[in-house]
Amino acid sequence: MLIVKKFGGSSVADRERIFNVAKRCVEDYQKGHQIVVVLSAMGKTTDHLIAKAHEIDPNPPKRELDMLLVTGEQVSVALMAMAFHVLGVPSVSLNGAQVAMRTTSAYGAAKLKRIQTERIRNELENRRIVIITGFQGMNKYEDMTTLGRGGSDTTAVALAAALHADSCEIYTDVEGVYTADPRIVPNAKKLPEVSYDEMLEFASVGAKVLHNRSVEMAKKYGVQLIVLSSLSRAEGTVVKEGTRMERMLVSGVAADKNTARISVIGVKNEPGIAFKIFNMLARNHINVDIIIQSVGREDRKDISFTVAKNDLQEAMMLLNENQAAITAQNITCEEGVAKVSIIGAGMLSNPGVAAKMFEALYSANINIKMIATSEIRITVLIDEEDANRAVRTVHDAFELAD
Amino acid sequence: MLIVKKFGGSSVADRERIFNVAKRCVEDYQKGHQIVVVLSAMGKTTDHLIAKAHEIDPNPPKRELDMLLVTGEQVSVALMAMAFHVLGVPSVSLNGAQVAMRTTSAYGAAKLKRIQTERIRNELENRRIVIITGFQGMNKYEDMTTLGRGGSDTTAVALAAALHADSCEIYTDVEGVYTADPRIVPNAKKLPEVSYDEMLEFASVGAKVLHNRSVEMAKKYGVQLIVLSSLSRAEGTVVKEGTRMERMLVSGVAADKNTARISVIGVKNEPGIAFKIFNMLARNHINVDIIIQSVGREDRKDISFTVAKNDLQEAMMLLNENQAAITAQNITCEEGVAKVSIIGAGMLSNPGVAAKMFEALYSANINIKMIATSEIRITVLIDEEDANRAVRTVHDAFELAD
Repeated sequence: MLIVKKFGGSSVADRERIFNVAKRCVEDYQKGHQIVVVLSAMGKTTDHLIAKAHEIDPNPPKRELDMLLVTGEQVSVALMAMAFHVLGVPSVSLNGAQVAMRTTSAYGAAKLKRIQTERIRNELENRRIVIITGFQGMNKYEDMTTLGRGGSDTTAVALAAALHADSCEIYTDVEGVYTADPRIVPNAKKLPEVSYDEMLEFASVGAKVLHNRSVEMAKKYGVQLIVLSSLSRAEGTVVKEGTRMERMLVSGVAADKNTARISVIGVKNEPGIAFKIFNMLARNHINVDIIIQSVGREDRKDISFTVAKNDLQEAMMLLNENQAAITAQNITCEEGVAKVSIIGAGMLSNPGVAAKMFEALYSANINIKMIATSEIRITVLIDEEDANRAVRTVHDAFELAD
Repeated sequence: MLIVKKFGGSSVADRERIFNVAKRCVEDYQKGHQIVVVLSAMGKTTDHLIAKAHEIDPNPPKRELDMLLVTGEQVSVALMAMAFHVLGVPSVSLNGAQVAMRTTSAYGAAKLKRIQTERIRNELENRRIVIITGFQGMNKYEDMTTLGRGGSDTTAVALAAALHADSCEIYTDVEGVYTADPRIVPNAKKLPEVSYDEMLEFASVGAKVLHNRSVEMAKKYGVQLIVLSSLSRAEGTVVKEGTRMERMLVSGVAADKNTARISVIGVKNEPGIAFKIFNMLARNHINVDIIIQSVGREDRKDISFTVAKNDLQEAMMLLNENQAAITAQNITCEEGVAKVSIIGAGMLSNPGVAAKMFEALYSANINIKMIATSEIRITVLIDEEDANRAVRTVHDAFELAD
């Protein structure tokens, strides 16, 4: 079998953990499997590098920030190769340029375009473990790029797809996907299996197990993902095409506190205004989540939406600069909010799920500010201080505990 | 003018020094010059990375060590580009692979083979300052290599040669080349000018101003070097083809404490033995300096030579492993020794220079263990504890003080 194994930054944070990862890989290697290891930067390295950049330049050129950040994973892969050397197993480390992982040019938010697999295949055929930097690639100018936060998951899935790997194992600091964050809901249950779509919804509402780009790519190319812990031997959660006959109504509850609400007040009630606003944000790589547009009163209407907290400042700046163009009378924002979501493919055929969620929140005296739904997800925006209580309340209401 | 400027690790050790370097470059840029900046890793970064590697693997594969080490300079160049951005000057950072700096395959001790200049020229023509990682390159396998310690000087000179630069400025933490180390001889004098050959001798005897590979390359391609301080505005020392009509007898005195003596005792007095010894060391990249062979007594002779302290262990291991092949009766070594040298093109036509040096050492009661001479250098091996005193004594004897 060809197995791609991805380990996050906390899994390679120090000498002991590096050897722990190396030993787990060697076990599978010695069973005769071909092993590709994808690594993130060690521990808080990326954050430290960003802090170093900001010490010099509060607004560093994105090309140069990527040039700086890609060193983080390169340190990880070189050290991992040394650990394999100590364990007596041949290996070789490769960075994004060496592979080559070709990406678009958008520094800091590049998208993978194609992966050259010749070198990797040659090394695997020579019975080497191949260790590859996650999160990075090279654009058409031969410049280094990064895929944005969480990009290492995407690197792993893309490699699994390109190499037609039998399995793509994503090692994290949790043992799998749970019905809710076990730190918030102590009796949350681990799910043996979720569908790509459910996993996408989990990721998009802030359950930080897998980056949603990686799940989308896994779904597109049919890559079977396994989410498991680098610190335990517990069985993980398999993410694949939904096939279970009997679905749980709701798979899980998640809260996302990395959110802020923006309201654009009193824009002209005419076609194209919403397009202008969201196109402007998209061009600046700001993702917008829940969107609510008020029913127009006379010639004016209000548009509210949420963005990630770290995009708030830039989004407000853009909106304020273009206030006239988007015909807004006023632009406001609110930071102390959180999204709480329930996810489950079973919702499709079960009316009344939303009502049950709203009832639980009402009983707990939690006020709902905004609501958004997809086919398999219901999300509400509430005060941030109510978020954990809301997760527990809803988890209980749907009887998700072990 | 096209100017290559090389700054060492201490010149970019922190935010303040990075901006200091950036500002000096911008001054020349604003005069209309084209500027190429070559940087080493910040401060003690390389040492820290090596320590990190040794934490994992006491004997790391050289390929992977290079993969690790090249990140050091990449951090420097990215941060420097950010400093230029803050100063409002367009710049671009490039690593050894991007340039590309093609090298031989010898990881840890690679030699530059050729430099592609298209990208650099394009960026310069677009009025960008081009910032390039010193010390590193890429071999034919597209793997990262390092040039060995001091390699950043070589990178700078090679770039100056390839780009036909008008000048190659090497910034250090001293103001130029002195008649002796000012920390040892407080009244040492700065030399306004030295020849390539003198500079080579200074470098080879441990005056750590310039790496001798870089001086050899500068001589070969006629690149005019200027050694100057990144911390002051003092005029530096120009290194170029010797042209002065009136030469000083002796240009300077230097001590090298990074040396150890090895004696191979009682080898057979037959052809090929010395070749075997030194060929074996050379193949393992161990440089040998002063060599003395005793006049053969009957069928046996002794061969003594010096190596750098950090090569001693490996050299002794090699010699001991091959004791039979090199027909040695015994192999010994001594660590507490130092080389003291006088250098000067004027020696060529002045007999009696050696005698004057030996007399000065004799008067100071310093015992000479070995002697080696070149056309413009005389080196003695003495006890390490006598080294500083020997430098002062010889400096006085030749009246080199200001």
